[in-house]
Amino acid sequence: MLGARGGWQALRRCSSSLPRAQRAVRLRVREALGAREPAGDVKVQGWVRSVRSQKEVLFLHINDGSCLENLQVVADPSLENRDLTFGSAVEVQGKLVKSPHRMQNTELKAETIRVVGPCDTWSFPLKLKKRHPLEYVRQFPHLRCRSNTLGSLLRIRSEATAAIHSFFQENGYVHIHTPIITSNDCEGAGELFQIETSNEAKESAEKTHFFNVPAFLTVSGQLHLEVMAGAFTHVFTFGPTFRAENSQSRRHLAEFYMVEAELSFTESLQDIMQVMEDLFKTATNTVLSKCPRDVELFHKYIAPAQKTKDRLEQMLKNKFVTISYNEAVEILKQASQTFTFKPEWGCDLQTEHEKYLVKHCGEVPVFVINYPYDLKPFYMRDNEDGPQHTVAAVDLLVPGIGELCGGSLREERLPFLESRLQRLGLADAYQWYLDLRKFGSVPHGGFGMGFERYLQYILGVDNIKDVIPFPRFSHSCLL
Amino acid sequence: MLGARGGWQALRRCSSSLPRAQRAVRLRVREALGAREPAGDVKVQGWVRSVRSQKEVLFLHINDGSCLENLQVVADPSLENRDLTFGSAVEVQGKLVKSPHRMQNTELKAETIRVVGPCDTWSFPLKLKKRHPLEYVRQFPHLRCRSNTLGSLLRIRSEATAAIHSFFQENGYVHIHTPIITSNDCEGAGELFQIETSNEAKESAEKTHFFNVPAFLTVSGQLHLEVMAGAFTHVFTFGPTFRAENSQSRRHLAEFYMVEAELSFTESLQDIMQVMEDLFKTATNTVLSKCPRDVELFHKYIAPAQKTKDRLEQMLKNKFVTISYNEAVEILKQASQTFTFKPEWGCDLQTEHEKYLVKHCGEVPVFVINYPYDLKPFYMRDNEDGPQHTVAAVDLLVPGIGELCGGSLREERLPFLESRLQRLGLADAYQWYLDLRKFGSVPHGGFGMGFERYLQYILGVDNIKDVIPFPRFSHSCLL
Repeated sequence: MLGARGGWQALRRCSSSLPRAQRAVRLRVREALGAREPAGDVKVQGWVRSVRSQKEVLFLHINDGSCLENLQVVADPSLENRDLTFGSAVEVQGKLVKSPHRMQNTELKAETIRVVGPCDTWSFPLKLKKRHPLEYVRQFPHLRCRSNTLGSLLRIRSEATAAIHSFFQENGYVHIHTPIITSNDCEGAGELFQIETSNEAKESAEKTHFFNVPAFLTVSGQLHLEVMAGAFTHVFTFGPTFRAENSQSRRHLAEFYMVEAELSFTESLQDIMQVMEDLFKTATNTVLSKCPRDVELFHKYIAPAQKTKDRLEQMLKNKFVTISYNEAVEILKQASQTFTFKPEWGCDLQTEHEKYLVKHCGEVPVFVINYPYDLKPFYMRDNEDGPQHTVAAVDLLVPGIGELCGGSLREERLPFLESRLQRLGLADAYQWYLDLRKFGSVPHGGFGMGFERYLQYILGVDNIKDVIPFPRFSHSCLL
Repeated sequence: MLGARGGWQALRRCSSSLPRAQRAVRLRVREALGAREPAGDVKVQGWVRSVRSQKEVLFLHINDGSCLENLQVVADPSLENRDLTFGSAVEVQGKLVKSPHRMQNTELKAETIRVVGPCDTWSFPLKLKKRHPLEYVRQFPHLRCRSNTLGSLLRIRSEATAAIHSFFQENGYVHIHTPIITSNDCEGAGELFQIETSNEAKESAEKTHFFNVPAFLTVSGQLHLEVMAGAFTHVFTFGPTFRAENSQSRRHLAEFYMVEAELSFTESLQDIMQVMEDLFKTATNTVLSKCPRDVELFHKYIAPAQKTKDRLEQMLKNKFVTISYNEAVEILKQASQTFTFKPEWGCDLQTEHEKYLVKHCGEVPVFVINYPYDLKPFYMRDNEDGPQHTVAAVDLLVPGIGELCGGSLREERLPFLESRLQRLGLADAYQWYLDLRKFGSVPHGGFGMGFERYLQYILGVDNIKDVIPFPRFSHSCLL
């Protein structure tokens, strides 16, 4: 399980500040644990997770964030010193040997132990061998990454990010940095953040803007990606997006990451859904194979019961279910359950409805397609059906979370788009968007996936604040 | 050169909307050009770059953004139609055959040509076979990606992004999404953008803030990365950063991308510099090998003369030069050139100075290390020297650009940091930063590299607006 990356390639990481004679092979804990053979003169650096002093032997566990597991250090009790406490930073030099214990592959027989940075254990908010609740560590945004749970979370987040980039790169997509500051509000949906220079913010309302026009933080890179899909056919972006929504909810963040993709020469919603499903499964399989122990920690101690793990296994094995919005409304109408919002054709699906649908389909991811025309933004492609008029839109609902992804075919036909924008009084503002339909316009579509919700889903994390590196929108701290 | 990715793996990309009998193998232009053997029943989609109708044969060139090169289509003149013009989108089905021409590997013998989207050639700002200047296409942010130059730029940008991610991933760094919205201004340097909800922005100065405190767009993720380096030892981020600087300059953007890394257990500035140099060379080598033709376009038509290409080859072959700030000042003092700003120990290096130093060292990248204590921000590590008091800081200067990267060892010693922050009146604001020095603090350091300046340097692009996907901060358009 370990050691895939291992080997002794770490030689190159030797600190050049040491005199040449003293140079030991510097290994990360992950490499040391995965080593296939013993080695002399090894150096490991990290933070002490436990100290156990016996009469004949001193045991340390050290962790350097390269994996969840600690490396056991075995030393002569004479090497103990006052500063060698839980939380202190150490550099241990010695021999890497096969461990006599079944639970670990190797251990480090220490020759020297140097305390690089002592720890004021008394005021350190993390305590020895204690599994702190997520609510507790959230109070210490600058220290919580040293807990096991946040360590695992951030390694998973890093691997998931890499897996998403790889998925698109390997399938020939061009990566585009869509603008963060923009004058374009995409759907007109959601509260926006406006930006000003800090001087302007202090002045009166009668001000000129830095960019001559009001500027906002992006809510989606979609329209910009559509521009690029008209040149590269396959494009994606993966960056921060913003909504000035109530940040006290367990489901919303003011700042969150979104994966978005657009595909040209795509005439069918099924083709978009296939990419969504492939992305989802590929990324999840990669995370499971790269961080099995980290994911296990979540499924064992954080996620509710056994559910998340079973769900994930089911999800990876089976094809996602697809139902139409029409079918969804019929299912809801026939439900024995009483809903707060009565299900009715033409109304948005509420969280209670989404939950019911997912349950009805067997607690698996469910694509709902072809939503009412009047519910959806102007850029979605008219299905030209009736009397119940729909657009080629899709939402992916998943157990425990609700909506995880949304996508659609985009309206590529100039007359359809023009008349719709005119009715909405937006034709002038979106002249450039209409322009795209005049110069070699092609059928295309795309989708977006909320990255934090994805992490919540695969790990079974209840509060979205616990899947971001810094819980910046809690009241306690805005680092 | 081509075809590395080629093969016929593209089968899976067949559009499921076509009846089964009609299914041809859908190939991207890059794949078709790189194919090693002829193939029947192939489908290629893209935009027409030229139409040449002869008595016996119709030639088309089509491009789909997968590479700079066009695929030549050979067809019977009967397949021509009125809509088949420059800029139109087409789907061509036929046989892929070996080309009789020396300059191309394959060509497509068309059986059917379908115009998917016609182009209003008259109002389309890009013209047939014309190399438009960058200033011209910058006026059309939504269409310029269909020019050869921007096509190449964006493919290079995408590959460089991937190469930077891979470099860190392969060296065991954890990727961290550092916050975009923050209350922390890192160095106190540079004009900040403040954010408000759009409703607040309309109200008076007596407002409450969305986050209870004033919030800004990040100027650097460094301090947040330092938090994470205290748990994972090696971390990086690659995201947008913001400065409310004059956006009319050729060197500055309000929104730009920065690569930042922090390394724990690092006692020497040389170790940081080694990572900077490795990153720089690895990313550049990857871009050169993945997009040789795209880079060639820049070196041939955009960059000044032969200089950029030669510089790049030199740079990749040789070790970067290192001089101290003290040496730099001596070199400048002894220069025969007269500077607008007189070089003096304790003063910042100006652009004219940087240019001279780079030239003096032979037009190669130059590390300048150990800057005056009073010039640099509070977090840089005190060298405890004198009487000319310095910190362990480094700037990387490159030909044609000036400063490309900046880094330092960070002050890990609590007493040094505490007294410095107290003198600056910042001890309260940075209590959390001081806290990090109490709990297993280790020697560490890091650096940042401006991604757009990096692209400008390797491609020889004069105006920084031409290396971003959307020239959003020009007056003409803020998409």
